[in-house]
Amino acid sequence: MRIAQLSAATQTPVATIKFYLREHLLPGGERTSPNQARYDAAHVRRIRLVRGLIDVGGLSVAAARRVIEAIDSELPLPETFDVAQRSVSDQLDPAAIDAGALAAVDTLMAGWHVSANNPGRLAAAGVLETFDEIGHVNHHGWFARYAAAALLVAEADLDEVDARPGREAKAETVVIGTVLGDALFSGLRRAAQEHISSLRYPNPNPNHDITETTKE
Amino acid sequence: MRIAQLSAATQTPVATIKFYLREHLLPGGERTSPNQARYDAAHVRRIRLVRGLIDVGGLSVAAARRVIEAIDSELPLPETFDVAQRSVSDQLDPAAIDAGALAAVDTLMAGWHVSANNPGRLAAAGVLETFDEIGHVNHHGWFARYAAAALLVAEADLDEVDARPGREAKAETVVIGTVLGDALFSGLRRAAQEHISSLRYPNPNPNHDITETTKE
Repeated sequence: MRIAQLSAATQTPVATIKFYLREHLLPGGERTSPNQARYDAAHVRRIRLVRGLIDVGGLSVAAARRVIEAIDSELPLPETFDVAQRSVSDQLDPAAIDAGALAAVDTLMAGWHVSANNPGRLAAAGVLETFDEIGHVNHHGWFARYAAAALLVAEADLDEVDARPGREAKAETVVIGTVLGDALFSGLRRAAQEHISSLRYPNPNPNHDITETTKE
Repeated sequence: MRIAQLSAATQTPVATIKFYLREHLLPGGERTSPNQARYDAAHVRRIRLVRGLIDVGGLSVAAARRVIEAIDSELPLPETFDVAQRSVSDQLDPAAIDAGALAAVDTLMAGWHVSANNPGRLAAAGVLETFDEIGHVNHHGWFARYAAAALLVAEADLDEVDARPGREAKAETVVIGTVLGDALFSGLRRAAQEHISSLRYPNPNPNHDITETTKE
């Protein structure tokens, strides 16, 4: 298809597609003349992936390019995970994080094989430091249950990666699951909070709209 | 204590404290003269909470104020949850979300009591729509495990709220758990991904630093 058809198929302006081409977020099409190229279904999928990373995942163009490069590379999957994780995480300096908070995270992750500079380990320690600072200090029992739930989610992620055929589909699943999975989980968590809350604190205000979700 | 001591106790510049006072993020101190006020431990805690919401939780000043007002109000806890959830969620229009994606989320949450405009339900549907668009369509089995994990986390959250003495401490736990809990969970999830990945794909590259976390 021509670039105008690619634009229609992906509901993405031609100018945006040209931007993706220039930024190496999208491979070039097959040249059919000096001014024309032909695109295929792989380009449609790639544009949707890039938009998912940037528009839904909130990645910068530079971060999206690193992630795309990891998908297209021959990196082993654990390193693809590593690139995807670093692209969606703030770069934290372990030295700037409170040693007590790092020790508390390591206690939550007892028995896990995690490298010292795993961005998730550092981010979690930063959050625990904030809990401590605001005087919310006895949280081990609370957050041990977060760690158990995180293991369930990570196992589901890796099972999905294993089930995908071929390296590119696996790598794409790693990336998209890492980038979009956080947003999905936090949405489900909020809905679950309302559900559990409605069970424990039955309707305090008859005007407050808590109804069983209707399936439309 | 005077404002200078409050500044030292919280490592927060006096100018920032005055900004919080003006923005009603922090209640005024007890007037001791026309130009002086006395602050106490409650002010120290509140400043740390505000900084946690803004600096770590990424809330805007307006969102932080809504959350603080919910803590200080006499709202029932389910409505405090509601305010906290809306403050950390994009406001999505249900009409703009694909009906198929909403139905898919409702299937994941089968049996939950969730209002139709719960921000988490809408956010999760938006994410599923993106998965569909990039051609990743058979995800029910994968994400049913996310929903089960989200229930575990929500139960842990509500148990922690129940265990806190008094309405203000409960409301503060609702707020801080909602705002910071997402960041904590996603950090633990990334660390868990590395752990599970290292079990399934044993060290592909001897130079890649995967070691059991040392407790320093």
